[in-house]
Amino acid sequence: VTNERLKKQIDFIIELDKMKSVFRQTLLIDHTRHENDAEHSWHFAVCAMLLAEYAAPEVNVDRAIRMALVHDLIEIYAGDTFAYDDKGNMSKEAREKEAADKLFSKLDDDQGLELRALWEEFDAMETPDSMYAAALDRLQPLINNHMTEGHTWVEHGVAKESILRRMAPIKTAIPAVWEFVEYVIADAIEKGYIKE
Amino acid sequence: VTNERLKKQIDFIIELDKMKSVFRQTLLIDHTRHENDAEHSWHFAVCAMLLAEYAAPEVNVDRAIRMALVHDLIEIYAGDTFAYDDKGNMSKEAREKEAADKLFSKLDDDQGLELRALWEEFDAMETPDSMYAAALDRLQPLINNHMTEGHTWVEHGVAKESILRRMAPIKTAIPAVWEFVEYVIADAIEKGYIKE
Repeated sequence: VTNERLKKQIDFIIELDKMKSVFRQTLLIDHTRHENDAEHSWHFAVCAMLLAEYAAPEVNVDRAIRMALVHDLIEIYAGDTFAYDDKGNMSKEAREKEAADKLFSKLDDDQGLELRALWEEFDAMETPDSMYAAALDRLQPLINNHMTEGHTWVEHGVAKESILRRMAPIKTAIPAVWEFVEYVIADAIEKGYIKE
Repeated sequence: VTNERLKKQIDFIIELDKMKSVFRQTLLIDHTRHENDAEHSWHFAVCAMLLAEYAAPEVNVDRAIRMALVHDLIEIYAGDTFAYDDKGNMSKEAREKEAADKLFSKLDDDQGLELRALWEEFDAMETPDSMYAAALDRLQPLINNHMTEGHTWVEHGVAKESILRRMAPIKTAIPAVWEFVEYVIADAIEKGYIKE
């Protein structure tokens, strides 16, 4: 291939296949195995399409979808950090920055920086698009956990307060969906999946 | 949950988890297992982001990304039909129409019809957005096949002419990427993955 830029893009696409082998704590709803980052990113992106009507009017849903697609790419090198793992989350920022340096430099500067900026915007959760994206990044595993008898909550003994804190972006960014979160948490407490 | 529309949307999101268990002929690049529809849809959508600069100016890349996310949903009920399976492809249209009736009716009419229209547009390959999407839907498995010693080509004894026909949308929609396809096919013939 004579086009050097295209060659880098193809090599990047090949590298991204590794997302299919980065496993998360979440189970598939059929309980057969853990979910991987590629599947999670797809499910999260589809949620962004399906629940768009609940977003604030200033949200650019297509930008949120793009964030969904790239928000976990750095986990190819940094690994998945469990949301409720306080120790893991202390080293997360440094590990992910290093991973981002490695990953995005595989592309030509303009394209690498553009993708990196999108990931950083998502991660900072300060803009309407990234707040909407963050809400769905939390909603999708909430649904899968609820449908698998609270698998990761039970395994790690996660308390109600931690989950409420983790789910807060849903209340802010898609308040109409909050009644569903409240239902899930109440139901999970009743069934003993979550500690009160 | 009091909002009936939201309830349908959440149930739909739950149903979509099954995409993670619809397996394709393609292998992961690390050879460990077959790829599933959720992973393929994600990888295809990311390709649509990464290769946008090669699309015709009239292409709306964000619409193509949305097509990538939903183009295989009906396979939850219709199953994956291997691209080079002539017999399977004869019954494909009827099976997929039935699957679409079942799937999209789970949402309120306006939203179900909107998603269905996007899938139908993708499937017809007649608009610039769907031609661009179709090109990437073919490029992603081409890359994975090439990186896995032509796994599905060898297994099914696929001939060069069939692959060229299958890849034709790449030549039309993203001509700058065609030199890569030619390189892959020449290399695969040399290595004996594809019958001349």
